[in-house]
Amino acid sequence: MDQPAIQDYFRGEHAICYGCGGDNPHGLNIRTQWDGHYGIFCFTPKDYHTAFPGVVYGGLIASLFDCHCIGTAIAAAYDAEGRLPGKEPAIMYVTANLNVNYIRPTPMDQELTLKAHILETGVRKTVVSCTLSTGDLECANARVLAVRAT
Amino acid sequence: MDQPAIQDYFRGEHAICYGCGGDNPHGLNIRTQWDGHYGIFCFTPKDYHTAFPGVVYGGLIASLFDCHCIGTAIAAAYDAEGRLPGKEPAIMYVTANLNVNYIRPTPMDQELTLKAHILETGVRKTVVSCTLSTGDLECANARVLAVRAT
Repeated sequence: MDQPAIQDYFRGEHAICYGCGGDNPHGLNIRTQWDGHYGIFCFTPKDYHTAFPGVVYGGLIASLFDCHCIGTAIAAAYDAEGRLPGKEPAIMYVTANLNVNYIRPTPMDQELTLKAHILETGVRKTVVSCTLSTGDLECANARVLAVRAT
Repeated sequence: MDQPAIQDYFRGEHAICYGCGGDNPHGLNIRTQWDGHYGIFCFTPKDYHTAFPGVVYGGLIASLFDCHCIGTAIAAAYDAEGRLPGKEPAIMYVTANLNVNYIRPTPMDQELTLKAHILETGVRKTVVSCTLSTGDLECANARVLAVRAT
């Protein structure tokens, strides 16, 4: 990827997450690129991330939504404060609620595109909405309630 | 484990799930034991299933809820039909909605206990409720809308 992701700025205890921490060698390496309006992330599942033949595992999809929505909340918070990520104090959010709708089977062997945006924002809580698509086909969507931790 | 789990009866295309399929060597091996009232599953995360130091990754928790609630829906459906699992035609459910509340950080290095029960049941749809606890402490809960596929 050319553009840095918000997770590239995570350090220390923020960088060991199985979903998105750069220091977790076993993890999914979820990377959120924020364009000022949307958080974008593209991911191609491994061949073992199956539910049924040809269909992506729903727990993986939930994991992608979780970290990507949190990454979007963090990136948007830096933006709202007029700060660049990577400077102290670090902004971090955690997930209070994750609500996933599985609309249709998500096909294997294709790149999945996650597109997230901020629905509501407050001092401590941010609500993030996200779609997961292959091509023009929306396969799942989610709503994440993110709570500011630092 | 002494008692068979509902997933032990999955065969062929039902057995490759990353979350609970016995034929997926990379998977989580989620196993649901149904006692006629509750689906029970105990799981100890790997050391790399972290969110932050000492805290279990939320996407893993979502995955455990997903497969265990589906397993509970399947086991309860065999029970309601007065049939033993492992006989054709196989009963299978898929997830339409997964809604997870993260109540408090889930500690690493402890066994997690998931306890699921049927909230509502219909011809095609079943709603499953589930808690995730360490000892007596409930760390997360979920509600899964399961739709019968076969």
